[in-house]
Amino acid sequence: MNYYCYSNGKVLRKNEIKVGIVDLVMLRGYGVFDYLRTYYGKTFHINDYLTRFEQSAKGMKLKLPLKQKEIISVINHLLKKNNASEKKDFGIRLLLTGGYSLDSYLPAIKPNLFILIENLPHYPDWYSTKGIKLMLSEHKREMSRIKTINYLTAIHLSDERRKLKAQDTLYCYDGKILETTRNNFFLFHGNTLVTAKNDVLQGISRKAVIELARRKFKVEVRAMLKKEINSCSECFVTGTTRGVTPVVQIDNKKIGNGKPGKNTLELIKMFNEIVNKECR
Amino acid sequence: MNYYCYSNGKVLRKNEIKVGIVDLVMLRGYGVFDYLRTYYGKTFHINDYLTRFEQSAKGMKLKLPLKQKEIISVINHLLKKNNASEKKDFGIRLLLTGGYSLDSYLPAIKPNLFILIENLPHYPDWYSTKGIKLMLSEHKREMSRIKTINYLTAIHLSDERRKLKAQDTLYCYDGKILETTRNNFFLFHGNTLVTAKNDVLQGISRKAVIELARRKFKVEVRAMLKKEINSCSECFVTGTTRGVTPVVQIDNKKIGNGKPGKNTLELIKMFNEIVNKECR
Repeated sequence: MNYYCYSNGKVLRKNEIKVGIVDLVMLRGYGVFDYLRTYYGKTFHINDYLTRFEQSAKGMKLKLPLKQKEIISVINHLLKKNNASEKKDFGIRLLLTGGYSLDSYLPAIKPNLFILIENLPHYPDWYSTKGIKLMLSEHKREMSRIKTINYLTAIHLSDERRKLKAQDTLYCYDGKILETTRNNFFLFHGNTLVTAKNDVLQGISRKAVIELARRKFKVEVRAMLKKEINSCSECFVTGTTRGVTPVVQIDNKKIGNGKPGKNTLELIKMFNEIVNKECR
Repeated sequence: MNYYCYSNGKVLRKNEIKVGIVDLVMLRGYGVFDYLRTYYGKTFHINDYLTRFEQSAKGMKLKLPLKQKEIISVINHLLKKNNASEKKDFGIRLLLTGGYSLDSYLPAIKPNLFILIENLPHYPDWYSTKGIKLMLSEHKREMSRIKTINYLTAIHLSDERRKLKAQDTLYCYDGKILETTRNNFFLFHGNTLVTAKNDVLQGISRKAVIELARRKFKVEVRAMLKKEINSCSECFVTGTTRGVTPVVQIDNKKIGNGKPGKNTLELIKMFNEIVNKECR
């Protein structure tokens, strides 16, 4: 949809936003982004997202032209202009590029900042009720703590994933489970919840779920071994667009009894409760 | 410089080429490119470059809208229109992007193709006559045989490289020497020339130099160990813009006597001879 978006200080329809070909984002894949969403028309944990966006920019040595407060004000303006409401939610993509490079290699002094309003992806209901299947693949994201725009491997693997009828790819590396292409991954051993500490994106939903889980379960944030897939009782993924989604199969291995686990369902409930509490 | 360039079937000045923000190259860093040059106004080994570009497109599952012959015809048209001559050489950048994605994730049916005419980078004369210094860094390029636009690590390391007064970064990984950020790397043990076989870009200058070297030296294309830096007698890099450039230092280790080696100088001479023969 052709929503009102933000482009370097201007509010434009999305199809009016055009970027000069010498932006380093096109010549060298140099850019960072972030992606948040609304629930019931209101943003969720926006400060966490904007702090991460700032950290990504800093990590890639790009100077963010707006402060957090200014970005929030732009986002609120865009949501209003696009008629966000209790009944109409949006995805909000922040994109900071390397800018118009003089030598096709080194970042410009002034990066380009875009804030795009998008429709949220629609996932079938059974993703949440029946759980999804993941395909394992050996890969570690380059600069894994920075949210760069590099999804080369993820997108490249899409065809294989579809052939295997998996809903996402789970990256493992050197005997450890890391994350999926766009979500964090968790597993339960009984009432102990485990998620990877290093070499993964520090997800905002991951953070929220870890905090919630600590109220009811033992939580271990540590290296998560690939072989734990064979012994775990439940798995799920967390992400901005998917919330908490049960995982019932990884490659050919069924998890638990092949249905969403009770602890996972409990966390989904708790997650929905804080969304309702904070946004409704 | 604002040269005439090609954008999806149109010839435009570079600053007139604008790309819609939803191109997957900006949202997900999804694109491939190639870069060739002219010598004395004529392209050098253009078929090798275009074949590699086709392979990169295929490797990333992008459909190249033009055939080799058609691309050559566009390039010749652009060179003429920009007054390429014996005295004015250009770099030619081919860029194929993921196109305007419907869901911000999967490539479009129709990628976008750009052919950009650029000034060649200018390197100081001493790079060739005195040789350059490299900084070692542990890294392996994702999808190393495909020329993707991903230079996140390379660009990110630029500040450190400058501080160390090195002219480029040499990637090593798991005890092996691979390549620099944009060049292939070679070393001599006496009259035996070695370069990496796997996990490196299959450079067109690399290919030309290997063929030339076989006339005079023993050539080994194989895994090149990091510890060989300590025992080698000469090093150099090859690349489209740099040709053959001697390397006289890697981190704190001086190579040979700290001056360009005689075999390297011989290869530079041979390389210049084929350039003259084919383009002059």
